[in-house]
Amino acid sequence: MIYFTSDYTEGAHERILARLTETNLVQSTGYGEDEFCEEARKLIQKACEAPEAAVHFLVGGTQTNTTVISSALRAHQGVISAECGHISVHETGAIEATGHKVLTLPSKDGKITAEQVRSLCEAHINDDSFEHTVQPKMVYISNPTEYGMIYQKDELMKLKEVCREYGLYLFMDGARLGYGLTAPDNTLTLSDVARFCDVFYIGGTKCGALFGEAVVITNPELQKDFRYVIKQKGGMLAKGRLLGIQFAELFKDGLYFEICRHANELAMELKKGFCEKGWELYVDSSTNQQFPIVSNELLAKISEKYAVSYTAACGPEKSIVRFCTSWATKENYVREFLDDLKNW
Amino acid sequence: MIYFTSDYTEGAHERILARLTETNLVQSTGYGEDEFCEEARKLIQKACEAPEAAVHFLVGGTQTNTTVISSALRAHQGVISAECGHISVHETGAIEATGHKVLTLPSKDGKITAEQVRSLCEAHINDDSFEHTVQPKMVYISNPTEYGMIYQKDELMKLKEVCREYGLYLFMDGARLGYGLTAPDNTLTLSDVARFCDVFYIGGTKCGALFGEAVVITNPELQKDFRYVIKQKGGMLAKGRLLGIQFAELFKDGLYFEICRHANELAMELKKGFCEKGWELYVDSSTNQQFPIVSNELLAKISEKYAVSYTAACGPEKSIVRFCTSWATKENYVREFLDDLKNW
Amino acid sequence: MIYFTSDYTEGAHERILARLTETNLVQSTGYGEDEFCEEARKLIQKACEAPEAAVHFLVGGTQTNTTVISSALRAHQGVISAECGHISVHETGAIEATGHKVLTLPSKDGKITAEQVRSLCEAHINDDSFEHTVQPKMVYISNPTEYGMIYQKDELMKLKEVCREYGLYLFMDGARLGYGLTAPDNTLTLSDVARFCDVFYIGGTKCGALFGEAVVITNPELQKDFRYVIKQKGGMLAKGRLLGIQFAELFKDGLYFEICRHANELAMELKKGFCEKGWELYVDSSTNQQFPIVSNELLAKISEKYAVSYTAACGPEKSIVRFCTSWATKENYVREFLDDLKNW
Amino acid sequence: MIYFTSDYTEGAHERILARLTETNLVQSTGYGEDEFCEEARKLIQKACEAPEAAVHFLVGGTQTNTTVISSALRAHQGVISAECGHISVHETGAIEATGHKVLTLPSKDGKITAEQVRSLCEAHINDDSFEHTVQPKMVYISNPTEYGMIYQKDELMKLKEVCREYGLYLFMDGARLGYGLTAPDNTLTLSDVARFCDVFYIGGTKCGALFGEAVVITNPELQKDFRYVIKQKGGMLAKGRLLGIQFAELFKDGLYFEICRHANELAMELKKGFCEKGWELYVDSSTNQQFPIVSNELLAKISEKYAVSYTAACGPEKSIVRFCTSWATKENYVREFLDDLKNW
Repeated sequence: MIYFTSDYTEGAHERILARLTETNLVQSTGYGEDEFCEEARKLIQKACEAPEAAVHFLVGGTQTNTTVISSALRAHQGVISAECGHISVHETGAIEATGHKVLTLPSKDGKITAEQVRSLCEAHINDDSFEHTVQPKMVYISNPTEYGMIYQKDELMKLKEVCREYGLYLFMDGARLGYGLTAPDNTLTLSDVARFCDVFYIGGTKCGALFGEAVVITNPELQKDFRYVIKQKGGMLAKGRLLGIQFAELFKDGLYFEICRHANELAMELKKGFCEKGWELYVDSSTNQQFPIVSNELLAKISEKYAVSYTAACGPEKSIVRFCTSWATKENYVREFLDDLKNW
Repeated sequence: MIYFTSDYTEGAHERILARLTETNLVQSTGYGEDEFCEEARKLIQKACEAPEAAVHFLVGGTQTNTTVISSALRAHQGVISAECGHISVHETGAIEATGHKVLTLPSKDGKITAEQVRSLCEAHINDDSFEHTVQPKMVYISNPTEYGMIYQKDELMKLKEVCREYGLYLFMDGARLGYGLTAPDNTLTLSDVARFCDVFYIGGTKCGALFGEAVVITNPELQKDFRYVIKQKGGMLAKGRLLGIQFAELFKDGLYFEICRHANELAMELKKGFCEKGWELYVDSSTNQQFPIVSNELLAKISEKYAVSYTAACGPEKSIVRFCTSWATKENYVREFLDDLKNW
Repeated sequence: MIYFTSDYTEGAHERILARLTETNLVQSTGYGEDEFCEEARKLIQKACEAPEAAVHFLVGGTQTNTTVISSALRAHQGVISAECGHISVHETGAIEATGHKVLTLPSKDGKITAEQVRSLCEAHINDDSFEHTVQPKMVYISNPTEYGMIYQKDELMKLKEVCREYGLYLFMDGARLGYGLTAPDNTLTLSDVARFCDVFYIGGTKCGALFGEAVVITNPELQKDFRYVIKQKGGMLAKGRLLGIQFAELFKDGLYFEICRHANELAMELKKGFCEKGWELYVDSSTNQQFPIVSNELLAKISEKYAVSYTAACGPEKSIVRFCTSWATKENYVREFLDDLKNW
Repeated sequence: MIYFTSDYTEGAHERILARLTETNLVQSTGYGEDEFCEEARKLIQKACEAPEAAVHFLVGGTQTNTTVISSALRAHQGVISAECGHISVHETGAIEATGHKVLTLPSKDGKITAEQVRSLCEAHINDDSFEHTVQPKMVYISNPTEYGMIYQKDELMKLKEVCREYGLYLFMDGARLGYGLTAPDNTLTLSDVARFCDVFYIGGTKCGALFGEAVVITNPELQKDFRYVIKQKGGMLAKGRLLGIQFAELFKDGLYFEICRHANELAMELKKGFCEKGWELYVDSSTNQQFPIVSNELLAKISEKYAVSYTAACGPEKSIVRFCTSWATKENYVREFLDDLKNW
């Protein structure tokens, strides 16, 4: 069985494992205050061209979203998200569990627009009983989205503008940021992201690390006391060095981007294969997640040899299916699949 | 500088790293539903003599405490803990952040007694306005405690009895359970723990793993829907296999206990040295954490070469200090210290 | 200016004020354990034909919804509601503030169907990663809805059935229950409501009392420890007698229903007037809230003399407007309006 | 049976009832935005000599404490209180239910000192792992305390100073403020309270109103968006006018203080009687709550005719008992009791 189910089906890039082994017996202080974290922090600040940014390392995505959002909002404030945003559907109500409503906007591909945000804010402001409704205070976007779609520079800039206008924080969930920034049609740099977002994170778990997300906070308002909230939400790893070591390795010489580019390239080959075969795509993704629509019959056949993720029904006879590549996807996995595809 | 600050100053036992490396490219499903977790689960059920117990793997202690407690309690219920219990002081209010009060009992060494629990429950029941106060519903104990002290079999049995009588769940924080169960004066087995507690966890982070805590739930009431709460509280590791691989290695042939026994033995040597030197001990711990009381002057001298943890002031001129050993503490660290000690 | 804005623009029915005055100097215990509350409790149990039901008195609606929902749900569970349900939009995220997600279903008129609930539950159960999503555990309906619409007996019965099938609690927000039960086309009795719902409340604030909501809990599972949660959520009135006195008066000889019938009758006159004038109605409500769609120009004219509630825009040039009657609406208010209406 | 159990055993002062009746049919907008609330707001601002203060009306004390505290604190922050403070013991964990820890200081009589607050803050700041503990951000005091004791001007000033120094908000629970400000030995004015506290409330429920607490927020930081939080926490009364009418009446011509002075005077007579009889007092209260220590045998005898509140055991054979007077306590209640007392 070959897995295309997700970008976390293997362990970590070999350089990361090697570095963990090499440093294993070095003694260090805990909780992210060690020299490895310090090194990783500097590398990330540099890559973001944001020397003043606060950089923190957490273990996973849900934890990171919860920590960032609950640290930023007051009791009566909520966070705007696409209806299909990860915080809205796939975190078992983690945000609500910290007391905050997720204010949703319709979206097919996971992206939301500045115009949608503006409308929501205007509706709030103009509501006679606005104090009876949750106050929007943050915009959450994922880049790439849960459907592999990316924000272009002008789109992010417009989101930033509308956020500034209405006093909202802009927060980017970058669980797969590497795949976004190395997509063939991408126009954003890491430095743009740092400039336009108040806070974002650089995903490690899905981009070659064993685990780990690097939160970058550029807005000083949001920097204050952040470590308290990490601890409270259970995200402060005792052996914080493990996060520092991994992110230092990923950012030392561009490994992070190299890994993600590799995954995107293989995903583009899959996509090409799908299209040549005449499969419809749910969205036109240029990153490592691809969403062909296939008949349920065909899905059964595929599943005999390849593990893929069922995403949603598409009418009674078809399904939207996710194919995911990663740093660990071997070229021959893709080639084998493409060969089989021809015969289906 | 030699670190005696904590039991998480190094990475992981070499066998764990080796196994992670060896399995690195095996593809698996995520979120703890892989074959490695399944193997570890079985090994732990067997070690606990509890084939029906639910076993879940989480990343860290605060997260685990929060998940267990918030999964078990209704809105108006609280958890009883020693005043110096980890959930009461050192988790930045994580339990309160999920809505529950920590009801504290005085304790010098971190242990609480069945009699204390009974008194608190009786006071609640007999309060005219009992509905105006938090209802006690769970007892949290740590074994060993934050001061290295252990519960003996009869003490745990009595706690279980009082819990049964008042309808309380008994929850043991076993972040350092291995050190407790291998202490020279210990009378508890892992199977006793499973029998007397409704839920407990076997600490990995502080006992040789890179990270990880194995929650064992024996009370079926508490087993229901636990994975939802893990996910909500941010504790469901995407690459759950990393936890399975580590715990399988630790429990395959008794490595877990071997590691902890080693740390305890070195701690006993330190303790012997302290006593021979005439140092007072804050408590009489038989596990890997030792708490001598030293003059601040002496502490400064020690700190030139050895990193230790300052715990609390003991009057204006003395401090309670923690020395911690672990699987990674080398015998020559201890020998070197004991040599120096003679000359102070 | 004549107010048709809401059903809480005046104080209370005169009999209530008289009874409060009459009993003012009687001494009683606090927090709802007095003789007046006991009397009211018995009257309500009798009216519901539910002698075993627990009856509690709270001050207001948001508080009541929060208390009921937070008392019933575990951390990972959510409550299903119409998108326009009061808990979903008009309580400043009160439900989320207690940690629970509101799972919404589309609805134009505020009603939801058994079929919608079934679909949502099936989707949850069949989701591969169901533990990553909030577990539905309660259905919230308002009767009448925020748009004045009522549930008929067969509709409520079907909701009950689907709830039983999927293990959900059925909770009816009866802030305006009296108007529903006395609507001309209503087929439900209070006893039906008690039989089909696990918990519901009988609204006082909007039905002639100064304030107050009587929660009726028929499901024993939900009865346990409810007073603790009332206290925690700030809903336990010190002078609980005030609630007992009011509800006893309302239920002594059918005053509650008499009051509400009066309001409905006047609302029907308004509705008839709207229709004769050719105004479109947003929904076909048979209760005290009426929602005509009028041009913004006309709305401005109306507003010179009559206060009404703007509800929503209906295209660029029209608005959906709420007219509300109550126990206190005088017949001549309505007659005056209908006279004016003819001339617009 | 004569009740000395509490200051909320009767309805409301007759002038309040009369005013409610008189205004009953006036139509007004809801949620505290009516003319009566506006009038009351102005009267209170004037009485506080704080024309810029925000004044909000809520229904009860627990609700008010919860709303104020949860509005002011970020996720990782806690509120300092006396161990026996109302928020610490008698609100069923309402503060924790909004996510915040109550950080307690020992106190016999319910008062805490600036020095205690300083020590707690210093301990937090100097803790090596301060981010692992809850950050103190607010000081909660009750005046009078739960044991009837009052803060003098210099004490409050010192508390304010220490709060300013450590960046804490000072919050006074004034559920019985009227009794404090009219105590024979009081040195504080309402204007002092407004000057020294960032936020406080003027209790109505226990001081002659049917219900109601007037929150006064002088610190602009805490004023922002407060109404959202009132609504979320269930404290926004639909018929807000009821609160406005009551507080306007209480503050129109000093009725509030007159009522409370009356209660204090009767309490002083009781106290004198206790002392003459040789009863020990738990604390030396100068307000409407008195705490004699009596033998359990005597308590049984008292209870045949007088309802009093059992507060706590005082050894195996004695009890601390609360006698409470109010606006409604008749002089002959006290006289009758004092006559009986002589014969016991």
